Amino acid sequence: MLGIIRVLTHDDPNFVGEHGRLIEQQYGIASLSRCIADQPTGIFDAASEARAVPKIVALGRQLEQDGCKALFLSCAADPGLAALRQAVSIPVVSAGSAAASIAALLQRPVAVMGIGANAPAPFRNLLGEDILYARPQGVTNTTDLLTPEGREASLACADGLYRQGIEVIAFSCTGFSTIALAGAINRQLGKIAIDAVSAAGLFASQLAPN
Amino acid sequence: MLGIIRVLTHDDPNFVGEHGRLIEQQYGIASLSRCIADQPTGIFDAASEARAVPKIVALGRQLEQDGCKALFLSCAADPGLAALRQAVSIPVVSAGSAAASIAALLQRPVAVMGIGANAPAPFRNLLGEDILYARPQGVTNTTDLLTPEGREASLACADGLYRQGIEVIAFSCTGFSTIALAGAINRQLGKIAIDAVSAAGLFASQLAPN
Repeated sequence: MLGIIRVLTHDDPNFVGEHGRLIEQQYGIASLSRCIADQPTGIFDAASEARAVPKIVALGRQLEQDGCKALFLSCAADPGLAALRQAVSIPVVSAGSAAASIAALLQRPVAVMGIGANAPAPFRNLLGEDILYARPQGVTNTTDLLTPEGREASLACADGLYRQGIEVIAFSCTGFSTIALAGAINRQLGKIAIDAVSAAGLFASQLAPN
Repeated sequence: MLGIIRVLTHDDPNFVGEHGRLIEQQYGIASLSRCIADQPTGIFDAASEARAVPKIVALGRQLEQDGCKALFLSCAADPGLAALRQAVSIPVVSAGSAAASIAALLQRPVAVMGIGANAPAPFRNLLGEDILYARPQGVTNTTDLLTPEGREASLACADGLYRQGIEVIAFSCTGFSTIALAGAINRQLGKIAIDAVSAAGLFASQLAPN
């Protein structure tokens, strides 16, 4: 059982279980998803991250006690990852470093695509401080991605990066997982995109397969 | 500490530690490499694999008892991987499924390159029974790779696959790690090759970072 930590507060179990469903579809891994408390707007700045980290650590401990064999911190910024790894005895994979580390392995021209102002820390750490970063036009939150315009803008943003000579795009937003953008890029543009939830699922599939 | 299981018997500590050195260079992970006993010619058929599996399991248990936090089964055929995972409580990554699973994630036209008669089981399981497989001309064992001719034949083999439209090559032989072929392919051909030792190191770097 994979314990999935969602770094926001949400009432809808369908929303909360989204990343777990994607990992189950792709890798056949069962999971248990839980949210941190009292942060309906999630993590969006240093103060909200500081409030979240102790909750992330406590939730990870709880998931371990409840029998999870590995944890997935489902956020591309890896908030509190080092503290969480210290706090539990099971493997912890996080969306940001999972996607960024696979992109780094490929050693080809790479860019990061997300919806924030710039590439989150794990991408800058693993791919270089000056890593090329882009966000789709008109998209500032994950809800924007769910519209036809948001999806179109995301595909156009990726296409623009590939036309510049980029060969690999790593996603720094799990909202692209919800709209299955990596698959669309593969089919429609014939290019490589690394989905952050799929990347984390890959690590879970190899290192905590039971 | 990463415990590395070499699936052959060898006296030279420099040879035995080769994969550990590559992982330390690339990911800064310390390791302890040990060989299985009484198999100087390694695993080359079903009978030699059957003899090796109980030794692989016993060696994995010993490395866990000696304090290793994760294990790397350094063979592209993943011999005894399921039994080893059952036998220990720490994560186990293996060269074959590590490389093959990353290649599968990329969802682009892929081939496997090795030195045996065909693609080992983990590559066929993860990339399809009919996965395209090639081996460099004149290369039948890892010693052949260490000559200038072997290196040239390996690069030519890869080049031929890319010219057929293959975009990603997964290595099913750790001998290509010793000659740093993935880096040569990247620099000289501008293409993606997934080195099996690097792939395993990537998993270890994310899930057993201490």
